[in-house]
Amino acid sequence: MSKFLEDYEIGERLDLGSHTFSKDEIIRFAENYDPQPFHLSEEEAAKTHFKRLCASGWHTASVYMKLLVATHKRLHMEALADGRVPARYGPSPGFEDLKWLRPVFSGDTISYHTIVADKRNSSTRPAWGLIYADNHGTNQNGEPVFYFRSKVFLERRPQIAEHA
Amino acid sequence: MSKFLEDYEIGERLDLGSHTFSKDEIIRFAENYDPQPFHLSEEEAAKTHFKRLCASGWHTASVYMKLLVATHKRLHMEALADGRVPARYGPSPGFEDLKWLRPVFSGDTISYHTIVADKRNSSTRPAWGLIYADNHGTNQNGEPVFYFRSKVFLERRPQIAEHA
Repeated sequence: MSKFLEDYEIGERLDLGSHTFSKDEIIRFAENYDPQPFHLSEEEAAKTHFKRLCASGWHTASVYMKLLVATHKRLHMEALADGRVPARYGPSPGFEDLKWLRPVFSGDTISYHTIVADKRNSSTRPAWGLIYADNHGTNQNGEPVFYFRSKVFLERRPQIAEHA
Repeated sequence: MSKFLEDYEIGERLDLGSHTFSKDEIIRFAENYDPQPFHLSEEEAAKTHFKRLCASGWHTASVYMKLLVATHKRLHMEALADGRVPARYGPSPGFEDLKWLRPVFSGDTISYHTIVADKRNSSTRPAWGLIYADNHGTNQNGEPVFYFRSKVFLERRPQIAEHA
């Protein structure tokens, strides 16, 4: 999000990169935050409806965040290198409609991307707006595994904000 | 969720316990999944709108899951000890409307609870239903910090499912 609110177009796509979920990482996350059998061992997972070791849904979501932050940092640095002022982004007040569409199994590589869905100016903070995005995770077979609609505060262009 | 779908009443409350977010844990989660300055160090956080080190929103959500799983395990064991058959619960297809209402700062103790909001039988899997719940996180000052509406597959009572 090195760009300001006005610079984003509805439908614009941003690829966030991909992540391979290793067995060790799936188990480590689950031990800390979601210790259910199908997240903890192949043997236990085989006895469940999932059949195979798969990642906690909160792990799938957290990896989205990891890749989003890395993408922001890269775009921020690119903006600075180009002599542009990078826009700041603020907190997320939350989101709507998260879906875990398929399990993320051990060894799966999930590619994440985000598509700008909507944007609006903040009614209370004239220097800021809210940007809405549809976020998608897709496995190595092209199957959707993860979706949610996010909203995040994003800075407006300074000259526009001053006259708002 | 040791109880079957039919055993839950709308409005029923389940306390999930509480968790104190230590500085070390906040930083460890952020290093792995959300490396933004306000999640990584007190010094960097002081320069941001948050002012103080605070937990990743995905960390707050993951701790909810940790406490939910622990509560399920306790209720499952209690059911077995009482000679009852514990209900199985299935995967979550996702959820609606998650809100991060206030920051969770280093040292905050968040208490989580869940309130049954709705339930319905599955149209495709007669042995199962979907249970909807409003999940809340509240800090040590009684202020709400976290909310989302979950939905999870939950087993129906066997004798009812057989005649459905």
